[in-house]
Amino acid sequence: MGTTQLESVQEPKYWHLKTVLNDALDSEFEVGEILPNERDLAARFGVARATLRQALEQLELEGRLQRRRGVGTTVAPPRIGVAVGPSAGQWPGAGPDAWRTVGCVEAAAPAPLAALLGTGPEETVHTIRRERTVQGQQVATELLYVPQSSVPGLSPMLTPAAHAPAVLRALHALRLEGEDRSVELGSARAEDARQLDRLPGAPVLVVTTRYVAEGRVAAASVATYRADTCRLTFGDSGAMEVTHHASDEDRQAS
Amino acid sequence: MGTTQLESVQEPKYWHLKTVLNDALDSEFEVGEILPNERDLAARFGVARATLRQALEQLELEGRLQRRRGVGTTVAPPRIGVAVGPSAGQWPGAGPDAWRTVGCVEAAAPAPLAALLGTGPEETVHTIRRERTVQGQQVATELLYVPQSSVPGLSPMLTPAAHAPAVLRALHALRLEGEDRSVELGSARAEDARQLDRLPGAPVLVVTTRYVAEGRVAAASVATYRADTCRLTFGDSGAMEVTHHASDEDRQAS
Repeated sequence: MGTTQLESVQEPKYWHLKTVLNDALDSEFEVGEILPNERDLAARFGVARATLRQALEQLELEGRLQRRRGVGTTVAPPRIGVAVGPSAGQWPGAGPDAWRTVGCVEAAAPAPLAALLGTGPEETVHTIRRERTVQGQQVATELLYVPQSSVPGLSPMLTPAAHAPAVLRALHALRLEGEDRSVELGSARAEDARQLDRLPGAPVLVVTTRYVAEGRVAAASVATYRADTCRLTFGDSGAMEVTHHASDEDRQAS
Repeated sequence: MGTTQLESVQEPKYWHLKTVLNDALDSEFEVGEILPNERDLAARFGVARATLRQALEQLELEGRLQRRRGVGTTVAPPRIGVAVGPSAGQWPGAGPDAWRTVGCVEAAAPAPLAALLGTGPEETVHTIRRERTVQGQQVATELLYVPQSSVPGLSPMLTPAAHAPAVLRALHALRLEGEDRSVELGSARAEDARQLDRLPGAPVLVVTTRYVAEGRVAAASVATYRADTCRLTFGDSGAMEVTHHASDEDRQAS
């Protein structure tokens, strides 16, 4: 890079290529269609491979293209609108939702979670892994952290299969006083990437939720959503039946 | 790439390097410190420049590193928690908020927005650009689209300076019946990038909000947040005064 002209800083070459490619996708390609290989594309648009690759990466960030293992680069379907979290005022797993419990372990929470939960470094935490499937696609994987002090009195003799249900039942017995969420960009950790069928490091949307009961944080979850296929939705349910999201889902489903 | 061993697909080389680098950041560097150049770092960790660059990109996605024009790569401060949208049930610009109006034009809305608003392709829409600053940093830029049919009866003789305030006043006179939001990953468009002091194509979080009044979408906004410096927060305000966000902001402010 080194010295770059001011203009090219503001509008790098791949940026222009990206808009040209975007138009070509609209006019010449169908959803799911596999793009020609990089060599051919670079030749067609008269650019270097590196420039082409940057433009493709941009289009992937924007959800226009999808890179799939063993398939190549395809034109992405519209992102799926995925409602985040259970309904307001509802514990995770308390009602019918799109999450499935995969397992439960007891372990010390990672440092940032321990800070969120106010647990000591020694304190073990029930850690429930869940996954979420929408329209047959796995869109998210989640770790739900429940300190033992939030659900005291669990039998120490629980079988692995009974562990997560027992923790959730005990949690649901508490009165949920409030919850809040944050959303930020992250990169998929190895284990999450495996579950989401992505490469480690793929961009993901990380949703951190804190659940408050009895005046303190009784549980917290970190959910990792595929950023390529998901659009996270938040809203007052009620009057707001979200027509454009619904229509996206229709398009997806059809 | 071509043939890759299964193991290296699951744990690419840059992935391991990333975790090593992450630990080095914790133990050897302060927030704001400039990293050694790529050549030196690659030599120190015994990896190729390309591998190093991938690992640095990961750490940038995760908010650990920041690339700044004319400065280089620095250790990022913790992300700022930024509450998304005005309070529930409040029109944009209706109360004291962190947004500042930059200007207003009348133009046909881009196709996806026209679909959201239910406006025809010919119909012009008041388009108000706003920007948001938190702790002296510009974190977001927004376009708020208000169809003329939502705010009929505006004087056609408005001066440019009076245009946005008049549109907002007329909007605030309507009863807001509901709103919903979606968050997705995007890449900064040229104009947004300029306003956010980023390169075009930098990853951003795109928040789309629909405002419903009189049974239809009366306005919609598309806000573009810097993904490197922001964590978007959503929550019941009330009981949920968010201690970890607050402490982040303290650290930021100090």
